[in-house]
Amino acid sequence: MPAHTPVTVIGLGAMGSALATAFIEAGHSTTVWNRTASRAAPLVETGATRADSLAAAIAASPLIVTVVTTYEATEEVLAPAAHELKGRALVTLNSGSPAGARRLAVWAERQGARYLGGAIKNVPPAVGAVDTLLYYGGEESVFAEYEQTLRVLGGDTVYLGADPDLAALYEMAVGGTLLPALVGFFQGAAALQSRGLEAASMVRFAVKWFEMIGSVLPVMAEEIDSGDYSKPLSTVNVFAAGAAHDAELGKEANLDVQWHKPFHDLLNQAVESGRGEESIASLTELLKGKP
Amino acid sequence: MPAHTPVTVIGLGAMGSALATAFIEAGHSTTVWNRTASRAAPLVETGATRADSLAAAIAASPLIVTVVTTYEATEEVLAPAAHELKGRALVTLNSGSPAGARRLAVWAERQGARYLGGAIKNVPPAVGAVDTLLYYGGEESVFAEYEQTLRVLGGDTVYLGADPDLAALYEMAVGGTLLPALVGFFQGAAALQSRGLEAASMVRFAVKWFEMIGSVLPVMAEEIDSGDYSKPLSTVNVFAAGAAHDAELGKEANLDVQWHKPFHDLLNQAVESGRGEESIASLTELLKGKP
Repeated sequence: MPAHTPVTVIGLGAMGSALATAFIEAGHSTTVWNRTASRAAPLVETGATRADSLAAAIAASPLIVTVVTTYEATEEVLAPAAHELKGRALVTLNSGSPAGARRLAVWAERQGARYLGGAIKNVPPAVGAVDTLLYYGGEESVFAEYEQTLRVLGGDTVYLGADPDLAALYEMAVGGTLLPALVGFFQGAAALQSRGLEAASMVRFAVKWFEMIGSVLPVMAEEIDSGDYSKPLSTVNVFAAGAAHDAELGKEANLDVQWHKPFHDLLNQAVESGRGEESIASLTELLKGKP
Repeated sequence: MPAHTPVTVIGLGAMGSALATAFIEAGHSTTVWNRTASRAAPLVETGATRADSLAAAIAASPLIVTVVTTYEATEEVLAPAAHELKGRALVTLNSGSPAGARRLAVWAERQGARYLGGAIKNVPPAVGAVDTLLYYGGEESVFAEYEQTLRVLGGDTVYLGADPDLAALYEMAVGGTLLPALVGFFQGAAALQSRGLEAASMVRFAVKWFEMIGSVLPVMAEEIDSGDYSKPLSTVNVFAAGAAHDAELGKEANLDVQWHKPFHDLLNQAVESGRGEESIASLTELLKGKP
């Protein structure tokens, strides 16, 4: 193994380009390929090699990193030169469901590739920072062999286990807070604007609020893991009482607050099933489907 | 003004008790009162004075801090001794709507009290820490006179302006992310449990994820304030593509994912109105009611 493994990056959107740049800057011989070839130009200027074909791109390195939107799209992009994957390590970094990751793992194995499915939990400008988190699941030998290379992409690089869908599972489990949290922020911004105040004026407070939310997650996780919701930091009833204020603010600021309804339904359902004085984390039990 | 203003704390739930403890520890002569008198006992042991009546509690200090669930409940609790409020400063720290804060401000003025409406953006154990945030709106003279005393409750103490409902407005604007974010976390925990994994195993990742969300808020706020959503960090289309994965994971992990529907509706509505390649922050415009 040379000190700097040659690496091929396939898929040169904002994230793929950021990853390729990190490899180049770390001194790796970096080959790039993208269906729209023009995307490679800025990377070639900074030291990447643009392959003439997908097959040549794969043949150039023992480690192939793909950054295509989904697992399905990744297979579609790789398929025309699938035979070249034999004996190489394929590492995917994209969004998608655990089922999609498992399907791609089966497909990759059929091509004779060793597969590691990864996810990057941050935005392109954060690539390469010491605390940027990436996690991986799949063939341990791939992670062991290329850990130092992958660590170039972010200092907080984690191996989750041998199941090829673990990164997808954790990505969805963790990432499921993003859209609901953002919509909550957007609503707050709209409420401030209705009073002639700027959204920027709440940013500092919102950042602190997310820190506060982060600070209670260990306790909530413990409640969920133990199934004991009887010593709450914050009760279902407290949240249920807040629901009325949401409606009042919505009316006052002329906001569309229909998106609150499923949350209020969950709270009501919890209160009706006798969980009013339990921890808000007991809502977890209501999200679990009936066996 | 003595170095340590005597202060009365009314409402001794977990938060009220934490605030009273902070005043006691900072050397303030602290009088406490609660409808259920037994709640005062632990505070008396650590140096508080329990008033024999609500009227006596109010009469004991120039600064009255109430920590009752809502503005409405605060008025109800204070009403029997409202005449004692005359000439005193009333500071409320509770949840509620801006309208509720304005009603209480009018009521307090009618009693001859000077009113400051506050909110504490954290949990009881965080009271007194240097970076704990509290903000206030209302009579500036009250804030100016008692700022040092109020700072005992949290080092990040902010005066928002003269409107008595500003703390309620910001509390709701900022706090609206909490329940949606938590439900997203609970769903992730349930998804991990369906695979025999512990919720605790995602906490570190979720905390980092919230930090990432915090890091993009300044850009999103700028987009919202300028109304220019044309240079997106992350597009509506990217989120819309993710919606299908949510459904797939829900099925696989046997989760109730009905609460996603309003979010997916918002994304679809944005795509249909031509916002697909705009920033996800453009959803803000869809939350604004039609004039």
